[in-house]
Amino acid sequence: MTAEIQAAPHADLLTGFRAGQRTALARAISIVENGRAGFERVLHDLHADMGRAHRVGITGPPGAGKSTLTSKLALHLRTLDERIGIVAVDPSSPFTGGALLGDRIRMTNISTDPGIFIRSMATRGHLGGLATTTKEVADLLDAYGYDRVVLETVGVGQSELEIAGTADTSVVVLVPESGDSIQAMKAGLMEVADIFVINKADRPGADRLAQEIEVMLHMRLGDMPTNAGHHGVSLKSVQKAAREGVKAAAEQHGEWAIPVLKTVAQSGEGLEELARTLDQHRVYLHESGELSRRRQARLAERVRAVVERRLRRLAWQRGPGEHILESHLAALEGGEVSPYAVADLIVNQLGLGPAGGPT
Amino acid sequence: MTAEIQAAPHADLLTGFRAGQRTALARAISIVENGRAGFERVLHDLHADMGRAHRVGITGPPGAGKSTLTSKLALHLRTLDERIGIVAVDPSSPFTGGALLGDRIRMTNISTDPGIFIRSMATRGHLGGLATTTKEVADLLDAYGYDRVVLETVGVGQSELEIAGTADTSVVVLVPESGDSIQAMKAGLMEVADIFVINKADRPGADRLAQEIEVMLHMRLGDMPTNAGHHGVSLKSVQKAAREGVKAAAEQHGEWAIPVLKTVAQSGEGLEELARTLDQHRVYLHESGELSRRRQARLAERVRAVVERRLRRLAWQRGPGEHILESHLAALEGGEVSPYAVADLIVNQLGLGPAGGPT
Repeated sequence: MTAEIQAAPHADLLTGFRAGQRTALARAISIVENGRAGFERVLHDLHADMGRAHRVGITGPPGAGKSTLTSKLALHLRTLDERIGIVAVDPSSPFTGGALLGDRIRMTNISTDPGIFIRSMATRGHLGGLATTTKEVADLLDAYGYDRVVLETVGVGQSELEIAGTADTSVVVLVPESGDSIQAMKAGLMEVADIFVINKADRPGADRLAQEIEVMLHMRLGDMPTNAGHHGVSLKSVQKAAREGVKAAAEQHGEWAIPVLKTVAQSGEGLEELARTLDQHRVYLHESGELSRRRQARLAERVRAVVERRLRRLAWQRGPGEHILESHLAALEGGEVSPYAVADLIVNQLGLGPAGGPT
Repeated sequence: MTAEIQAAPHADLLTGFRAGQRTALARAISIVENGRAGFERVLHDLHADMGRAHRVGITGPPGAGKSTLTSKLALHLRTLDERIGIVAVDPSSPFTGGALLGDRIRMTNISTDPGIFIRSMATRGHLGGLATTTKEVADLLDAYGYDRVVLETVGVGQSELEIAGTADTSVVVLVPESGDSIQAMKAGLMEVADIFVINKADRPGADRLAQEIEVMLHMRLGDMPTNAGHHGVSLKSVQKAAREGVKAAAEQHGEWAIPVLKTVAQSGEGLEELARTLDQHRVYLHESGELSRRRQARLAERVRAVVERRLRRLAWQRGPGEHILESHLAALEGGEVSPYAVADLIVNQLGLGPAGGPT
């Protein structure tokens, strides 16, 4: 342990936190969200309390009904006596100035249940940096003792995929209006999903979308003959072959056969099957050793993110970086000096040794 | 200039580049894309050659027809004797292993025109880091002498918005199938757009989408009475009031009234008006001083990104970071050590002085 780690400034907070005081949880989240002094110490101290929760990521295009699905899932899990913590990541809106709460309002009926905790986090511009903070808030919910920690993100940018990807189980929610499943593929969703959910499945196009996703999943395994669909083979029979092929390959290799579920979150239809599938995936993760692999990868990524966050702080908040940049703005715009030369100056000032200028 | 900047290792490259040799451009792009030794020096040396091109960002949800629109726009500008450089940012696909070229194939009819240059850049996972490289490739096209440099991004993640936002003029392309304009708002597109384009405007819903966007634009100015739409006021008349209000406010404040254009890229309809509007925006940027403000902001961002890129390199490629991380993976997973303590070790090793452990 380095000399810089001082006597825990938040001892009272940790005591209250571990005693299950909700106010302590709220305080810890506030400290972490705002990067207040001591926030990393809090996370450091709680590290050993983490790892028990099943972390579920829920992502998908806007309009897929993820908030409703998350609420209904949480309510269902409550009937099984589980306690659920939810981190909802909302892109900021120029209209509200903060988190876009439109869908969140639908969630208010669950916010009074003491077994459910929701935190909405707004993002504005710097989602790359915020992603780490979002995951740290999820860590707090894990440490606090929730059985499931749900990370729900609106949208399908790389950062949202990253957030979803840090979960133990990632659920991708699509709707028939998403229409073109090729769009799902383009958005990188195929790489993230452990479970696909077609929500609003009572609408036209639900079955077709499910079929297309199942066929694409099979194609990923490389088993699909390239002439599928060109010789009078119906999409439905291709789907059947796809689903059987995926299951067979999974059984053969001890892998997880990615299911495509259908739900109508509004009415609660399909939620029980989703909850069961989440449990099945958790079992698979434990039995296959995949959980260990994913968690190690997650921890390694956290180390990288924390190192880079510190370096950024050193460069811009504690060092002369900001000042050097400001004083060169006019010269930069005038073309007299390049951003690379200015970057040189800043990095050299940090005393890191040979910064290696523009290489 | 720091001592580390050595004698230009790419002098021949720069000579050929400035002489307009396309092979030199391709080589410079390759060096920058792959971060080869000397890549920052090339960009540094070319800095004074930059700033002449009109940079246009084109973004929007998948399926909006951006590639087609970009191709047709380029072809139209060619008839006006302009030369156009295009950087097309494609998310990677697990199917192709590289850039998702489906839409790009439509662009091949323009790839043989010597006045048009296209570079497709695949992204995989680390779009945050790639964003800087993408902008640097756009810089090369600017330095090379293209009149317009178009940055086309697929998707609407934060990074795509960031890329679009670095343009002088940002065009957001929607289609009637985008359906819910609220989704556009949620995706942060309202903040980025200087020009909205409703493409595939021959499809049903085009007029309505245009109306909704215009009303939302007016609401941003805070002029919209809160009871709009609740007292028998038709959307159409609200739109009319909105458009007039936006124009009036713009004229009063010397601001740009964000237009909502309609195109059918496939047939070329509306492309002439789009090109004219791009020119109008460029004039506005110059006359208002906004161009200067945007470019300074862009250069400042570049300095930050380059500093952070260097620090990352120092931490992970030149320093003991990777080794320290590897050797602690098992202990991290076992809960014996926190990622914050490991980050401490790494940052301290960089010799930056008091790294300030978990604060």
